[in-house]
Amino acid sequence: MMKNLVIGQSGGPTAVINASLYGAVKAFRESGADGHVLGMINGIEGFLADHVMDLSTDLSDEELELLKLTPAAYLGSCRYKLPADLDSEVYPAIFDNFREMNIGYFLYVGGNDSMDTVDKLSRYAEKIGSDVKFIGIPKTIDNDLVLTDHTPGFGSAAKYVASTVREIVLDASVYQQRSVTIVEIMGRHAGWLTAASRLARKYEGDNPCLIYLPETPFSLEQFYNDLDAAFKKSPNLVVCVSEGIADEGGTFVCEYSDAAKLDSFGHKMLTGCGEVLESFVRDKFGVKVRSIELNVNQRCSGMMVSETDIEEAAMAGAAGVKAVLAGETKKMIAFKRDSDMPYKMHCTPEDVSLICNQEKKFPKEWINAAGNDITDDFSAYALPLIQGEPKRVMENGVPKYLYRK
Amino acid sequence: MMKNLVIGQSGGPTAVINASLYGAVKAFRESGADGHVLGMINGIEGFLADHVMDLSTDLSDEELELLKLTPAAYLGSCRYKLPADLDSEVYPAIFDNFREMNIGYFLYVGGNDSMDTVDKLSRYAEKIGSDVKFIGIPKTIDNDLVLTDHTPGFGSAAKYVASTVREIVLDASVYQQRSVTIVEIMGRHAGWLTAASRLARKYEGDNPCLIYLPETPFSLEQFYNDLDAAFKKSPNLVVCVSEGIADEGGTFVCEYSDAAKLDSFGHKMLTGCGEVLESFVRDKFGVKVRSIELNVNQRCSGMMVSETDIEEAAMAGAAGVKAVLAGETKKMIAFKRDSDMPYKMHCTPEDVSLICNQEKKFPKEWINAAGNDITDDFSAYALPLIQGEPKRVMENGVPKYLYRK
Repeated sequence: MMKNLVIGQSGGPTAVINASLYGAVKAFRESGADGHVLGMINGIEGFLADHVMDLSTDLSDEELELLKLTPAAYLGSCRYKLPADLDSEVYPAIFDNFREMNIGYFLYVGGNDSMDTVDKLSRYAEKIGSDVKFIGIPKTIDNDLVLTDHTPGFGSAAKYVASTVREIVLDASVYQQRSVTIVEIMGRHAGWLTAASRLARKYEGDNPCLIYLPETPFSLEQFYNDLDAAFKKSPNLVVCVSEGIADEGGTFVCEYSDAAKLDSFGHKMLTGCGEVLESFVRDKFGVKVRSIELNVNQRCSGMMVSETDIEEAAMAGAAGVKAVLAGETKKMIAFKRDSDMPYKMHCTPEDVSLICNQEKKFPKEWINAAGNDITDDFSAYALPLIQGEPKRVMENGVPKYLYRK
Repeated sequence: MMKNLVIGQSGGPTAVINASLYGAVKAFRESGADGHVLGMINGIEGFLADHVMDLSTDLSDEELELLKLTPAAYLGSCRYKLPADLDSEVYPAIFDNFREMNIGYFLYVGGNDSMDTVDKLSRYAEKIGSDVKFIGIPKTIDNDLVLTDHTPGFGSAAKYVASTVREIVLDASVYQQRSVTIVEIMGRHAGWLTAASRLARKYEGDNPCLIYLPETPFSLEQFYNDLDAAFKKSPNLVVCVSEGIADEGGTFVCEYSDAAKLDSFGHKMLTGCGEVLESFVRDKFGVKVRSIELNVNQRCSGMMVSETDIEEAAMAGAAGVKAVLAGETKKMIAFKRDSDMPYKMHCTPEDVSLICNQEKKFPKEWINAAGNDITDDFSAYALPLIQGEPKRVMENGVPKYLYRK
């Protein structure tokens, strides 16, 4: 009997979440299955409000190709956590929609929280004896999902970070006067993306000279000593830090200024750790100092996407369709690495209940003993993920992307 | 008699200042002149300390091609202002160096302040009867030099801003919940670069929905009303502001928080106007709000350079060589636009004394009556400048750039 597939995007945007959507739509079309692919507008939250579009009919082949290279989340996203209690009335509402829309297959592209959604819906289906199948497609620039070698979105974000930091290093080195440039990179709990700044370093002694991740306790005293030592070798220092660096006691560095810093309206200002460290350096060294927050473009830029990442994200979408049509459920498509050089990997479904709500930290053994640099082992791991550049589609001098009006 | 040419880079880095260097080195080689091209390391400041390199012998053809696509300032830069008093002892020191290094021609790539250097050195040469010739090559992302249609560096920065804002617009639109995203763009006194965010808008009603330049007095009250009106049309608003927006009384918006905002070390924090407006919006609207400072990458990124800009920067370097060899002095190479469609321009030397220390503001007639948007006339002006993408040279997944170790 003909069944439709519904797919949604959830959590923060990445450069390749739409490539997974592309891969899924394309694979479903090519599978010969005679249902439609429906897209949830704004994830499960929108789906609850019957907000869907028909991706089988509403996207031309040309638009589908453009979708593959479009960053952010074409369908819109949500941050909606399903209730832990499977007796909640939300579940029957969702499954009523499945019946009404004749849904047999459910794909959800996202990170930790989205995998939690896949897990809960699978368990509810089990509970009520529904035969709807649920598969998660991984997506996060944080690269913090367990049971997968890496996640789609990380490679492009890592390539953007490495390339951007390389350019910041050039920019920071033009004057003779001593200076410190602090680059704050996304990563609240895991340092994967900040570690990618290591790939910007071209020779021994080159910038970035210091890299700090949340996995090592941060101390202002060590930071002072590290900078002092680095100034003996070079006048212009570039330092990369994760937004989530914290001290031995677990206090985030970005919280250091909370007490002192009020805005003109009397409220606490939200400060990044980069700004806190900027003030510290200005105070202690009296040199020119600047902090740069890479901000949302590190996750959503199409300017420096990795072709490897794009292709793998599409592959994950296609693998999700294949798995769900084969009757698999309660799984996430994981990546297994077969070799570094030449780089080879394949997709395999893993139990989503073992993945959701878990966090894969950056390995301690890839951080140097002093806790201020990344080892070459990480480079060997990360380099294959940032290779290749797809041909960009331009319109009037800016990248052409697909959007819902 | 054989004479050498010396060339320096000065002021803030851009994506194409090295393309001008490339154009000059190449043109001098091809001119048949038998001198060498010397590069000042760190501009006139380094030159005073005899710090030069021989660009004729030290750069291979391959390196020269790579130089053309390398952002920032290969020779290093300075922010050194020559004394107004031509009787200062600095001048004989510089001209002694000219004699010792057998310099007959002097090119300086930079903005306002650098043109001041060209002007002063030309006047000193006149005064002492030296036959060294001085020509300025324009360079600034601010596009604020007079007597030239536009400046090398602006096109690439504008393309980066338009492309980046386009991606921020996609990123900011993924959730249903109301939100404001404030993008702070470089431009202390002139709004040219912020205006380029207009090129990110794809249809009537699309983001960025509001654009504020320093050329129009900014008022928080109007800002509130503008946002309030915009929320009636769309839940997700992207607003672009110049770092230098100021109110009717001339106070910079970024100064509003000065009194209240101290860091944990008891010092005043440097805040951008984006952060001030972020607090204001949070206070008044209670919606999700984020401010993004595009920071140094808008001036120094090679990821989204304009091929038109690269070629014109090289052309300006070559035109400088041609002019100086022909005996011109006290001039800056200016761009004259012959037509918009098809876009045509040519180089011509203009009196540098009429250019230095002047500032070309964004035209009032290209700002709408409400002072919160840019007209189509600007798009017609700016679009030709952001066209084309050179083929990027990559190495290990990141852009390959030339650097002095």
